[in-house]
Amino acid sequence: MAEKKTKYVYFFGSGKAEGTAQMKELLGGKGANLADMTSIGLPVPPGFTISTEACAYYSSHEGAYPQGLREQVLENLAKLETLMGAKLGDNENPLLVSVRSGAAQSMPGMMDTILNLGLNPTSVKALIAKTNNERFAWDSYRRFMQMFGDVVMGVPHHEFESALQDVKDSKGKSLDTELDSKDLQEVIARYQRLYKRYTGEEFPVDPIDQLFKSINAVFKSWNNERANKYRQMNDIRGLLGTAVNIQSMVFGNMGDTSGTGVAFTRDPSTGENQFYGEYLMNAQGEDVVAGIRTPEPIETLRAVNADVYDQLVGIRSILEKHYKDMQDIEFTIQEGKLYMLQTRNGKRTIFSWLRSQVEMVEEGLIDKETAIARVPAGEFGKLFAPILDAKYIRDNGLNEVTRGLNASPGGACGQIYFTADKAEEMAALGKDVILVRAETSPEDIGGMAVAKGVVTCRGGMTSHAAVVARGMGCPCVSGAGDIHINEAKKTLEVNGTNLSEGDYMSIDGFTGAVYGTKIPVRSSEIVQVLNGHMKESESNLFYNYKTFMAYVQEVKRLGVYTNADTPHDTEMAVAFGAEGIGLCRTEHMFFGGNRIMSIRKMILANNLIAREKALSELLPMQRGDFEAIFLALEGRPATIRLLDPPLHEFLPNDHTSRHELALQMGLTVEEVAQKSSALHEFNPMLGFRGCRLAIIYPEILRMQVRAIIEAAINVKRKGVDVLPEIMIPLVGNYKEFVFCKKHALEVIEKIFNEQGMKVHYKIGTMIEVPRAAITADEIAREAEFFSFGTNDLTQMTCGFSRDDAASFLGPYVNDTDKQFYDYDPFATIDIDGVGKLVDMAAKLGRSTNPEIKLGICGEHGGDPKTIAFCDKVGLDYVSCSPFRVPIARLAAAQASIAAKKAK
Amino acid sequence: MAEKKTKYVYFFGSGKAEGTAQMKELLGGKGANLADMTSIGLPVPPGFTISTEACAYYSSHEGAYPQGLREQVLENLAKLETLMGAKLGDNENPLLVSVRSGAAQSMPGMMDTILNLGLNPTSVKALIAKTNNERFAWDSYRRFMQMFGDVVMGVPHHEFESALQDVKDSKGKSLDTELDSKDLQEVIARYQRLYKRYTGEEFPVDPIDQLFKSINAVFKSWNNERANKYRQMNDIRGLLGTAVNIQSMVFGNMGDTSGTGVAFTRDPSTGENQFYGEYLMNAQGEDVVAGIRTPEPIETLRAVNADVYDQLVGIRSILEKHYKDMQDIEFTIQEGKLYMLQTRNGKRTIFSWLRSQVEMVEEGLIDKETAIARVPAGEFGKLFAPILDAKYIRDNGLNEVTRGLNASPGGACGQIYFTADKAEEMAALGKDVILVRAETSPEDIGGMAVAKGVVTCRGGMTSHAAVVARGMGCPCVSGAGDIHINEAKKTLEVNGTNLSEGDYMSIDGFTGAVYGTKIPVRSSEIVQVLNGHMKESESNLFYNYKTFMAYVQEVKRLGVYTNADTPHDTEMAVAFGAEGIGLCRTEHMFFGGNRIMSIRKMILANNLIAREKALSELLPMQRGDFEAIFLALEGRPATIRLLDPPLHEFLPNDHTSRHELALQMGLTVEEVAQKSSALHEFNPMLGFRGCRLAIIYPEILRMQVRAIIEAAINVKRKGVDVLPEIMIPLVGNYKEFVFCKKHALEVIEKIFNEQGMKVHYKIGTMIEVPRAAITADEIAREAEFFSFGTNDLTQMTCGFSRDDAASFLGPYVNDTDKQFYDYDPFATIDIDGVGKLVDMAAKLGRSTNPEIKLGICGEHGGDPKTIAFCDKVGLDYVSCSPFRVPIARLAAAQASIAAKKAK
Repeated sequence: MAEKKTKYVYFFGSGKAEGTAQMKELLGGKGANLADMTSIGLPVPPGFTISTEACAYYSSHEGAYPQGLREQVLENLAKLETLMGAKLGDNENPLLVSVRSGAAQSMPGMMDTILNLGLNPTSVKALIAKTNNERFAWDSYRRFMQMFGDVVMGVPHHEFESALQDVKDSKGKSLDTELDSKDLQEVIARYQRLYKRYTGEEFPVDPIDQLFKSINAVFKSWNNERANKYRQMNDIRGLLGTAVNIQSMVFGNMGDTSGTGVAFTRDPSTGENQFYGEYLMNAQGEDVVAGIRTPEPIETLRAVNADVYDQLVGIRSILEKHYKDMQDIEFTIQEGKLYMLQTRNGKRTIFSWLRSQVEMVEEGLIDKETAIARVPAGEFGKLFAPILDAKYIRDNGLNEVTRGLNASPGGACGQIYFTADKAEEMAALGKDVILVRAETSPEDIGGMAVAKGVVTCRGGMTSHAAVVARGMGCPCVSGAGDIHINEAKKTLEVNGTNLSEGDYMSIDGFTGAVYGTKIPVRSSEIVQVLNGHMKESESNLFYNYKTFMAYVQEVKRLGVYTNADTPHDTEMAVAFGAEGIGLCRTEHMFFGGNRIMSIRKMILANNLIAREKALSELLPMQRGDFEAIFLALEGRPATIRLLDPPLHEFLPNDHTSRHELALQMGLTVEEVAQKSSALHEFNPMLGFRGCRLAIIYPEILRMQVRAIIEAAINVKRKGVDVLPEIMIPLVGNYKEFVFCKKHALEVIEKIFNEQGMKVHYKIGTMIEVPRAAITADEIAREAEFFSFGTNDLTQMTCGFSRDDAASFLGPYVNDTDKQFYDYDPFATIDIDGVGKLVDMAAKLGRSTNPEIKLGICGEHGGDPKTIAFCDKVGLDYVSCSPFRVPIARLAAAQASIAAKKAK
Repeated sequence: MAEKKTKYVYFFGSGKAEGTAQMKELLGGKGANLADMTSIGLPVPPGFTISTEACAYYSSHEGAYPQGLREQVLENLAKLETLMGAKLGDNENPLLVSVRSGAAQSMPGMMDTILNLGLNPTSVKALIAKTNNERFAWDSYRRFMQMFGDVVMGVPHHEFESALQDVKDSKGKSLDTELDSKDLQEVIARYQRLYKRYTGEEFPVDPIDQLFKSINAVFKSWNNERANKYRQMNDIRGLLGTAVNIQSMVFGNMGDTSGTGVAFTRDPSTGENQFYGEYLMNAQGEDVVAGIRTPEPIETLRAVNADVYDQLVGIRSILEKHYKDMQDIEFTIQEGKLYMLQTRNGKRTIFSWLRSQVEMVEEGLIDKETAIARVPAGEFGKLFAPILDAKYIRDNGLNEVTRGLNASPGGACGQIYFTADKAEEMAALGKDVILVRAETSPEDIGGMAVAKGVVTCRGGMTSHAAVVARGMGCPCVSGAGDIHINEAKKTLEVNGTNLSEGDYMSIDGFTGAVYGTKIPVRSSEIVQVLNGHMKESESNLFYNYKTFMAYVQEVKRLGVYTNADTPHDTEMAVAFGAEGIGLCRTEHMFFGGNRIMSIRKMILANNLIAREKALSELLPMQRGDFEAIFLALEGRPATIRLLDPPLHEFLPNDHTSRHELALQMGLTVEEVAQKSSALHEFNPMLGFRGCRLAIIYPEILRMQVRAIIEAAINVKRKGVDVLPEIMIPLVGNYKEFVFCKKHALEVIEKIFNEQGMKVHYKIGTMIEVPRAAITADEIAREAEFFSFGTNDLTQMTCGFSRDDAASFLGPYVNDTDKQFYDYDPFATIDIDGVGKLVDMAAKLGRSTNPEIKLGICGEHGGDPKTIAFCDKVGLDYVSCSPFRVPIARLAAAQASIAAKKAK
């Protein structure tokens, strides 16, 4: 609730500011940094910031202002007018301001901006007098009307565009810049009529009215669909609202000595420590990022205005030292004078993150923990993402059809589509899609999200397409101006090559190369080095990776294991730093070659003897598999889960296969079908599987335990350490566990006697049935480890079948009127529900067995947010697929740092 | 562990006893009561009891004795010999003893008994000399050999029988009693050879050897299959083992002045307060209960020996006053002198329980709480069990084909089978089975358990068949001697009527009548009175029921609601004392008449408008249903669950029905099939159902809420109170609940405005998803009641699909090497798992909403053990099917009494 004396407005200007860099929550990132830059003496146009609290009040009070807000805005406006010696709407020295949103986290392209506010039929004349630039003044007015009409009042953008086009057509002019003052006044007249037609009122001339309408529009834009969608997609939560920055205008469009630009203090694509940016002379506001004109690289600015360029280079250095991270800045040059409009931590590719952070540590700018905490674990997997096969390109003499900007790294190949909707449609059919657009807009986000790659004809490194694609880790080539799209015919032409919708295209987001053909996509450099297909010394990326993972290893507490069923997966995971196998699914070994026949024989057997005979055929195969895995692990622990799926999964469903099986087994097809149908279950998820199989057919368990222990002894005889951990699945009652353990121990003792040799081993269980979690104290008296099988635990705890949940779980997570779960509970553990159960089970387990080893092996094991949770509840390790091992290691290290800070 | 000084043996004799009636756990029921009867001065043959602790030690030490046991047995034997002035195996004055088992709970026919122990070639001669009855002595020896050989050494019973038959045949004699001393000596010689052939050793002559071998046999019998099975079927748990009673023999077979009998102090069938029993003169031991000869009613004993009869009547009175309950006694008359061999609380029918307890309260013998605590809630339902339709019999002029003994009450009709195996086989095929046997033995238990009724040709009211059938609540006619079975031909003949296997028979267990035809089975008297089909004054049973239920109502704390979907069920349940509806499943209302078409239209609709149109057709029908139910409830609360099952359950599966539906809907069959297949789920249990439907299609919820509230208003307008409680099913997350509640409140407010009238209502949820239980504190902030849906909660918590669990859950509960769950978790709540969750949810719910109303509506709600649990964790009510309401009320009262005692 607003108190009478709450301060809602913070002033900045002339080297002093009421806000600070620490006030991001309250002033938004932009407002806090404008204040901060002002304080450290950088040239920032003065202004003031309305706090996010005001927005929050506005949102929750149906558009009412908190008490005092209006007065504070007017006071600060007066202060700004005094400082600038100009007055909003004044007919002699008119002040113009921009009104911009700015939340605590950056949301590019999502919130709305109004420039040149304060212009009206009177002040525009004063502006002409003041600037002596009639065309500039009318153009500024025209732009303001267009932005205000569109953003504040919802007059469709395209109506303004077509009004503008009409005037151009009637004058026989093709470019906006060709329009003169008179033309522009005609445009303005049309805009006024347009505005009145849509809104039913005259375009406001009172600048105070303009101002508050604009402030309200920014407040409202916080909850528009695009903003909500962006926050959801980017997992931005818990913010109060947006701040509103009202700042005196500076103009990059006052002629050839004016301009505007954006820059990064390091390369946002590669992370290289070099100044990186773009600018356009005689341009205003959104011209650079909108991608309408392709801007110039920053280093050419030196030739245009060396003083300004040097000043910018100096500011680059000041900002990096001040913020100790790569900055993304916006600047405007007004008639040769530099103004800073924004600085913020730069968005960048994961390659850039990795390199910049490693280099900053090496430069002494930051410490290792800072570097670890910053690198986004959710993006880390992209380091291992595929790239275009360079050898294939060389061998086949393939040439680029064009080269655009390397806007987002990664190689991609797919079929081209020209609209986001079509891209979504085809991706849903399972096609690899390359989305090709003239330029992208926020409406295209859905199509970009499903595309393997994005190509635009216009726009630079900071265009919408580039920024969004980098955020999504989607390879992108932007500004590929040679590409000409014919949307109606659904074709494109590029340097003489013609492609139609559905034709293949390959792009290289590292270089900007575009190929009009299908090119295989292959492993990342890191994977190639780990596989021995590339020399370590040849890859700067590998150096950064290796260096960074050494930091990670120093810091993390949680062990990181892998889920692996084959020696190959095991080797890959170990190369990625896996410290053991957390889940080896033995049933995956039953499908190859003759094995499936043996397991089918076992299932179709009518008595113990026939079952044991079939099992004895499987024994040497399983033993061989385990030996290979143990060798690959070189002494690391291997958690091996006994047979888990329902038996019907091993029987054929179609008549032909059943016929074949019947022939081989000497049975009738009816007998096979009968057995299959006897095994049919209404809810197989809750059926005859897991340890239930071992309990009804202990001979299966006995065979598997024998295979594991004999393999372990064989490998130990070769001088390689082994540590098998036998995992009993789907235990819900400690008595089930005791039953299985008894059988296992009998077999193990027998083998030790037969072989005259012992190995270390553990026997434990998966906690995946809610009842097991609830009674974990009882189970822990007998079990040496728990591995949380959070896939099934989620299904049973929440009552969702993963295979069936699509009909409601999508809306549950995504619909703005629902959002019952913060994240897809199969991707990130449902902390409040399933997580509560995991925490309870961990505590109960340790209460009766303080030595118990606790891990997680569901697919959640590779999810950074879940890993943070696992660290918090004190698990010993997480286990995930081999390619997620480095991500999990990073997330584990970040969790350790967060835990340290929380203390 | 046995300590050196542990006392294992307790002596009784001559008016003094070391044991007491309170020592049942240690001395078994028989031993404790023998001691007690001795102490109160009844004529008990002296002896001693070996404690159950000795048996427990023996069982857990592979047949070893605890230290001191053997010595204590010998010391007590010496004491007995002194007291009796006779010595085991003595060649002048030989002592004979019986050795009998006796656990803390009675297990008739299950444990083994040896009589006449102490006889050998020497002592038999001394017995002849002492009794001057050569035939008696040899017959006693023969009986001893047979029992010892069979029970102790496992020589097959039938071998003894055929040896006996051989001798009879060779002598041309048909009855055992026709054999003279010489014949019997020949039988003994054959028995000796038989014994040696089977055991490889001579029949033991050393009586001490005989004694310890017999004691061991009793110990071992504790764990034989029959005993385990009996305990399991009768839910007998937690006992240490059996005691062993060694008692000096008295003989009912010493001629016409001797005899033996069993009696009940009240009628075990009806509960009438009259002496009730049977006896046989010149008979020993098991002759009465074995059913080989049909015994005489007790009242005829007065004519045989008035003194003994009067003495027995006196003892009857002493025992009832002493034990304050109906007693089941065994006695022997040895040459005109009465001996008491056993007393115990009598097993009886539920009718007998009800009448005896009500009358004992009215007699002032016991208080109401004692009466309530004793009546077995698990049997209470039998009061409402069907009976043969008397009107049908009368109208059709049906005559009994014979009349046997009314051994176990209830009417039954079914197809006859002559072996237990065949009965089990046919029952498994869904047939109603009447098992007809010459006599039954423990091997027949399986067949009896599945039979609708049991008929035997031989045996009395206390025969195996009668006792077991009463225990099972299975109607039984025993001793129907006119029935002659031809097992080979699978036919029977009875008074000129011939029936074959599979023919129909009807029996009346209340009267003993047998009909050779099919007779409809109809409601019990109580139900007839409640339905108004019989006058209250005509039914003594109803009087007892009504009186007893008034006691129950005084004592119980828990509310008892009913699960009812129709006005008829509601009326029945209210008549049975239901205090509200705990679960009204609205989907059951969707199947009648045109309704199914409307719901199918709704499902097949492609848009909101079409769905709302179909729903609007359903609205008046649902409203009408609710009005009728509210009227039947007369102001009691009605918990109405919104639509719960997955939608595909409403669509037809077969081609013909789909075709029909397609025609009616103007669709193609393919479209209908496609929709069905789109709704198909892998695990429907965990699928798109419950509140998930309401959330994706809020219009369904809105229609249902409208129907409920409009119905409530309509009924209230008629002057009848209403209290609808709207239940949102399958909530797992409080946000789901909030979403549904918001929609419901909107509708309700709208109706209140439309109608200008309000009604009281509650909105709550089922707790059936584990996540809901875990987060019950969050849900309780919004919900006004929780109803635990323990069916689904069990499925999800334990990970069992009820439809699929048969393959493992049977063995889990029943196999002696498993017994992972004490009871079928779908019948009795799994207290350690699901129960823990219920307890947790109740506590969490009350922590944020102390006023929340808590109940249970799973099928567990009618199970007495579950009700005890619900009382303990403090739920407000249980809900069960109408016919279980009285059982639940009784169980609730018993739970209150147990809770009071536990304080």
